[in-house]
Amino acid sequence: MRIPMTVSDFLDRAELGFSSSTGVVDEPDQPGPPVPGLTYGRLAERVRAWQAGFDALGVGEGERVAVVSHNSARMLELLFAVPMSGRICVPVNFRLKPEEIEYVVRQSGASVLLVDPELDETLSAVKARHRFVLGEETESALMRFGVEPRPWSNPDEDATATINYTSGTTARPKGVQLTHRNIWVNGLTFGLHTRAWEGDVYLHTLPMFHCNGWGMPYVMAGLGVKQVVLRKVDGVEILRRVEEHGVTLMCGAPAVWNMVLDAAASWRGEIPGRDRVRVVCAGAPPPSRTIQRLDEELGWEFTQIYGLTETSPLLTVNRTRAADAGLPAEERARRLSRAGVPALGVRLKVSDSGEVLARSNVVLDGYWEKPEETEAALADGWFHTGDGGTIDDDGTLTISDRKKDVIITGGENVSSIEVEDTIFSHPAVAEVAVIGVPDDKWGETIKALVVLTEGADVTETDLIAYCKEHLARYKAPTSIEFREAIPRTATGKIQKFKLREPYWAGLDRGVN
Amino acid sequence: MRIPMTVSDFLDRAELGFSSSTGVVDEPDQPGPPVPGLTYGRLAERVRAWQAGFDALGVGEGERVAVVSHNSARMLELLFAVPMSGRICVPVNFRLKPEEIEYVVRQSGASVLLVDPELDETLSAVKARHRFVLGEETESALMRFGVEPRPWSNPDEDATATINYTSGTTARPKGVQLTHRNIWVNGLTFGLHTRAWEGDVYLHTLPMFHCNGWGMPYVMAGLGVKQVVLRKVDGVEILRRVEEHGVTLMCGAPAVWNMVLDAAASWRGEIPGRDRVRVVCAGAPPPSRTIQRLDEELGWEFTQIYGLTETSPLLTVNRTRAADAGLPAEERARRLSRAGVPALGVRLKVSDSGEVLARSNVVLDGYWEKPEETEAALADGWFHTGDGGTIDDDGTLTISDRKKDVIITGGENVSSIEVEDTIFSHPAVAEVAVIGVPDDKWGETIKALVVLTEGADVTETDLIAYCKEHLARYKAPTSIEFREAIPRTATGKIQKFKLREPYWAGLDRGVN
Repeated sequence: MRIPMTVSDFLDRAELGFSSSTGVVDEPDQPGPPVPGLTYGRLAERVRAWQAGFDALGVGEGERVAVVSHNSARMLELLFAVPMSGRICVPVNFRLKPEEIEYVVRQSGASVLLVDPELDETLSAVKARHRFVLGEETESALMRFGVEPRPWSNPDEDATATINYTSGTTARPKGVQLTHRNIWVNGLTFGLHTRAWEGDVYLHTLPMFHCNGWGMPYVMAGLGVKQVVLRKVDGVEILRRVEEHGVTLMCGAPAVWNMVLDAAASWRGEIPGRDRVRVVCAGAPPPSRTIQRLDEELGWEFTQIYGLTETSPLLTVNRTRAADAGLPAEERARRLSRAGVPALGVRLKVSDSGEVLARSNVVLDGYWEKPEETEAALADGWFHTGDGGTIDDDGTLTISDRKKDVIITGGENVSSIEVEDTIFSHPAVAEVAVIGVPDDKWGETIKALVVLTEGADVTETDLIAYCKEHLARYKAPTSIEFREAIPRTATGKIQKFKLREPYWAGLDRGVN
Repeated sequence: MRIPMTVSDFLDRAELGFSSSTGVVDEPDQPGPPVPGLTYGRLAERVRAWQAGFDALGVGEGERVAVVSHNSARMLELLFAVPMSGRICVPVNFRLKPEEIEYVVRQSGASVLLVDPELDETLSAVKARHRFVLGEETESALMRFGVEPRPWSNPDEDATATINYTSGTTARPKGVQLTHRNIWVNGLTFGLHTRAWEGDVYLHTLPMFHCNGWGMPYVMAGLGVKQVVLRKVDGVEILRRVEEHGVTLMCGAPAVWNMVLDAAASWRGEIPGRDRVRVVCAGAPPPSRTIQRLDEELGWEFTQIYGLTETSPLLTVNRTRAADAGLPAEERARRLSRAGVPALGVRLKVSDSGEVLARSNVVLDGYWEKPEETEAALADGWFHTGDGGTIDDDGTLTISDRKKDVIITGGENVSSIEVEDTIFSHPAVAEVAVIGVPDDKWGETIKALVVLTEGADVTETDLIAYCKEHLARYKAPTSIEFREAIPRTATGKIQKFKLREPYWAGLDRGVN
């Protein structure tokens, strides 16, 4: 028997088996009314009210519904309600500029736009056929409680469930089409490899717009896990909620864990969650110092994963192996900073040019209305990640660099991440980005842009000497520039091509 | 991107990520040579040697390879090697009589027959185009080491991977066709709901022929779990291996856990695995006394599941919920004796006649060359389990009876399981089966067949009185017969229709 794998499976199980369990604890501190006490039974009812509301608006199957929202119970509901009726959900990065959001809404052709109350004014110029402010307006004028929604006429696991716009490096963001099957397989493998279960309490430290919160809203519901909404990331607030709600599981980029470590330094009393909390990290390979500190200072278990919006996102998983338990903390942390072993059903290889390629049911269907980009990304039946990497004998993937940012100096390939990790291990360094800049002798040479910690007193010469102590000499930067800050994208990524630009101006290519 | 979900995914991940980890510890005590020290890397090589061997024999895609074997590393290898080339594996119940095995080999049209050395003589009359004794003969004359096998020409998740013959209640056994997709989804959900991970050590207490060992050989490989082979079920031997190999996870029917409990009673020293071992039970709802004893006497965690060969098998899961942890042991045990909540992706309902129906990607494709039986089993798009049950408000399924064995006495439906459970809770009772027998007044009346424990001194009147104390009066048996033993099928099931036969002889129907 073949049954379409759709996102309904997750909510159906929550409603059937965990109807009276707490499903979602909404953010209390937000503009507009929070959604009170949501059991999974109530969540399913509210999802049906959204579905019936879109029915009444005349929004057809396949139409796009864009949502620009901080994390909230409503946002989570929409991740179910929109695709469960065969519509397509477009969760938009709220950190983008209004004109960028306008582009996303227009390019996706969304007929409905739902906006966070806090963003309503800023986004007043962004229009769609139907526009609602999330909260009082949607509760009263859109949702239809107690009305049975029209069922999806032909549930299809290969239908697009969501379109998630990538934060873009060089051009306009592209809409990543994830199918129900993509999300289903990602959910199951993510739950499997994190050993999630109904006894967990999940904190949404990750923005839900970001690859649908990595698919966690789906699998957590499917397992009957209590989900705690966090509207804005804040280190102290994370610790507070870990304590209050007995949180056991969280996901986030390295920056999130650094914020928690900072908050922990001034936390009064015992750090909550010791030997209970598991954190899952992705977005970039974190400095091994961060990993080690999570273990030593918080007693939280660390799992590194690797993936992209285009891969739903789960491609690889790395957790301390039983065999490694006896290693020194520093070595364990170093091993954990690798991307890890492919998740079940994922095949990886590294191309001749060093690019990581992936084949799996979690790989996107295509970029929305971008046939050429789709074809390029999926050439030869493999997804081209754009990241450089190597696969060790033990099957573990290490991301050495964003492919386009590999620094080739004097014919040697240098991983900017390795250099960054070393510089970051210096106690005076708060942030660092390493780039290649043109050099007559070496083709490229290595430059580090560094933000120092407050009150630190260290010179360029000191830092270069420190690198030469800890790295092969050719990997040490030849120059260091001290900065006040390093610019990042709305999702917190460093755009190296932008950092490189001024140094390469006037040259006709970006690599020597 | 759509990639076929096939059993290769499990072994591929094992080879890639756990190549030098111990994959399988073969049974040392068996006829013919055991397979020494199998890492997952070596297991994958041996699987390729099997595949290349079948290539050399000229066995085509879609052809059937029958295996009659006790649990062994070779049997486990064949569960991968045969379907990974697009062939179909037919694991045969070795407890069947030679003529029954002959029927299975013939009905499946197997072109290859592989036989356990211990069964070679008994099965000398069972023929196929190619016939090998597992062990020296297959190592030397069939497997081709170092030869790259022909890849499956067109991997297809909907292709049949295995045909597993059901143990049959009234007619000849039927061949359950499980597809690669069936096995894939069962493997992932089973791993997810048992929280399996690479730190586990799995003991094969379950016969691998039985629904492919419930799919455990696949998902355990996919997670890099060490698998310990147990050739013959024996309580003391299970305890010994739990101790020796640090076993954490096992599956089996209630009878297995009763054997372990018996062995534990005379075990010298501390029972191994306390607070570490998880056992997964199915095959029949176990007496709640057994569940309670596993908890109290062994400190092993108990999970009840429900499923059939036709459902790969996982349909429902039941584990003590956090909210129930404070309940008295007896009440916890009673709750655990229910079948549980549907696994992710499973939909259940109970028909008007009380039969449990299921819809899921784990449901069989069909019965091999039995179109009418297939149509009947899958009528209206639901799989008809043949079991009677109810679904509680909390979504939990309780199997009340094999549908055909429901006893209707005086217009009241009586669950024979409930009566059995009550009688079994009497300390003098070792085994019990409850059936309906014809009665002029009530249509049917309830009869219990009882095997007493050694030296027990209890009368029919005592036991009936005991039942009336613990059950509604109409549920108490009106007669009890003491027996030396209760006959079972090769898979340990009680065939109630056979027990009923003598009482219904001469009547033209089996239910009044």
